[in-house]
Amino acid sequence: MIKIIVDAMGGDNAPYSTVAGAVQALAADKEIHLVLTGRQAEIEGELKKYSFDKTRLEIVDCPDVIDMNDIPTEAVKRKQSSLMQAYWMLKKEEDLCALVTAGSTGATIVGGQLILGRIRGIKRPALCPAIPNTRGGVTLLLDCGANAECKPVMLCQFALLGSAYAKAGFGINNPKVGLLNNGTEEHKGDPLRQETFKYMSQMEGIDFIGNVEGRDIMIGDCDVVVADGFSGNVALKSMEGCGKLVLGVLKKELSSSLSSKIGYLFIRKAIKRMRGQLDFDKMGGALLLGLKKPVIKSHGSSKPETIKNSIINAANIYRGKLVPAVEELLSTADLDNLTEQTDEV
Amino acid sequence: MIKIIVDAMGGDNAPYSTVAGAVQALAADKEIHLVLTGRQAEIEGELKKYSFDKTRLEIVDCPDVIDMNDIPTEAVKRKQSSLMQAYWMLKKEEDLCALVTAGSTGATIVGGQLILGRIRGIKRPALCPAIPNTRGGVTLLLDCGANAECKPVMLCQFALLGSAYAKAGFGINNPKVGLLNNGTEEHKGDPLRQETFKYMSQMEGIDFIGNVEGRDIMIGDCDVVVADGFSGNVALKSMEGCGKLVLGVLKKELSSSLSSKIGYLFIRKAIKRMRGQLDFDKMGGALLLGLKKPVIKSHGSSKPETIKNSIINAANIYRGKLVPAVEELLSTADLDNLTEQTDEV
Repeated sequence: MIKIIVDAMGGDNAPYSTVAGAVQALAADKEIHLVLTGRQAEIEGELKKYSFDKTRLEIVDCPDVIDMNDIPTEAVKRKQSSLMQAYWMLKKEEDLCALVTAGSTGATIVGGQLILGRIRGIKRPALCPAIPNTRGGVTLLLDCGANAECKPVMLCQFALLGSAYAKAGFGINNPKVGLLNNGTEEHKGDPLRQETFKYMSQMEGIDFIGNVEGRDIMIGDCDVVVADGFSGNVALKSMEGCGKLVLGVLKKELSSSLSSKIGYLFIRKAIKRMRGQLDFDKMGGALLLGLKKPVIKSHGSSKPETIKNSIINAANIYRGKLVPAVEELLSTADLDNLTEQTDEV
Repeated sequence: MIKIIVDAMGGDNAPYSTVAGAVQALAADKEIHLVLTGRQAEIEGELKKYSFDKTRLEIVDCPDVIDMNDIPTEAVKRKQSSLMQAYWMLKKEEDLCALVTAGSTGATIVGGQLILGRIRGIKRPALCPAIPNTRGGVTLLLDCGANAECKPVMLCQFALLGSAYAKAGFGINNPKVGLLNNGTEEHKGDPLRQETFKYMSQMEGIDFIGNVEGRDIMIGDCDVVVADGFSGNVALKSMEGCGKLVLGVLKKELSSSLSSKIGYLFIRKAIKRMRGQLDFDKMGGALLLGLKKPVIKSHGSSKPETIKNSIINAANIYRGKLVPAVEELLSTADLDNLTEQTDEV
């Protein structure tokens, strides 16, 4: 049994998407049990639409909902909200394995740090989506927005966290780690990158391949790309925008002439597969990495399928023993020494 | 007559690409005259392959070539190199309007600052490519790598430079300017972004629409996106990588079955147009903006068509009166006051 708690009120389409996604996840993975937090009557109203294994789903009534306009540090105090209640339960109840939410990113990060807590030794959690790459797998990019400002020690820890996630979530045994920079040469970048490069080169427990560029996230050779939360966020959203432009141009071009309309009939399936490979929303959310249990932040505009994928992703990460993997890497990397060195920077 | 100087030895495919591109540009735009710097014998060897208007092309023999491995601050001293000779001539000869090079980015930036010089009042030049957007036009993104570290006053100047380029190069009369950030809310980002937002909101001479995200570069509403050189570079290369992934996936999908192979025959032209819209290399290079004359840095892997487009782009920018437009905006924006304020930050 893998018991996952879902913030049923989080996201633009809640509770429709969250409930539908939860039901789909139950059907797809028989090991999953779910706890849904949120307004019981609304959740039950949605659940009525579907048939599902009722022994594997329970509801915890929470009258309050945090929205995108709430200030995270204030929102964290609202214990009766679906998100913070979920965090409190995740912290207290040992059999709860992971949390999935499509709610406010800021509140998810603050709640994770203040309620659930970080893995011992980790300075800051990082947001880590899995991005499709030309090798047919995924590249993990972190941090994508939890920390706009970073120090070298944080980036070094992100390298550990990302390596553990690559192993636990995707079965990559010796994940290659790159440092996102504005060039591949050793001396490239600002002082943050230059210092980090020095420390990362000496770190135990990771396979550091050096500086990488933005293009390497999707077409490069590494499994984990480490960035500060500002440039990681810029990279992620730039790729997202490019993906949308491409699909838009393709759609327009394919309806631009009779010939291309005929052609489209033959390639519909290929285009659909391609669209699936580029749909960042479908990837199953970003992992908030570095907390005591896995927390998946699904896109605010999540559809049922996205929520389903996020829940299954959470189950897989738990199965892959993410938190023990992080702890093991932390001990290998002799982090105390590193922290001492890099805190002076 | 628009006389442009071309570094004929710059780039991976020089002098083949540079010479072929130069000949194509002469044919495409009768107002253009060209001066090619580089090894005369090699250039003449390439020129023999083509017929062209010999009255509009001259060669200046330079025995030395700067390559990607040379340290820019050292390379700038090599006066007999094709790039630095081009810079010296551009500085001294009044009838030379612009420079095009596919050589080392670092050497181009250093040479631009130390030999040609900046427009009076401009603190640092910025690298500015034109990126295709969903509106069917281009978004100017600057800085894309000339300055890994920036201060608020530099970003404010980039807003002016980008606005002038939008007007002079693309006829956009009231270009909208966005600040690249990790969210659109006013308080978002690190101290650099927060300070810059404050100053930019008060600036005269630009139409500042606030913070924008990475996705807005390709699918947003603004014409100019301002970034520090580090995150601008990350954004540009992330989009480039995404574009390459998409074209790769598309190619694979379209040859994956008999049906899609048949379909491809009907949509070949549409796909080719789409590829053209996504090929960053074809866009005609990035403008090194803020110097006394327009300098276009074309991609190191430039093909003849890229060089042709870069030369024509340079001619158009000169015709559009870029430098006077920058000077006008600088005076409107009351930059002395701004510099005083932001230098304290």
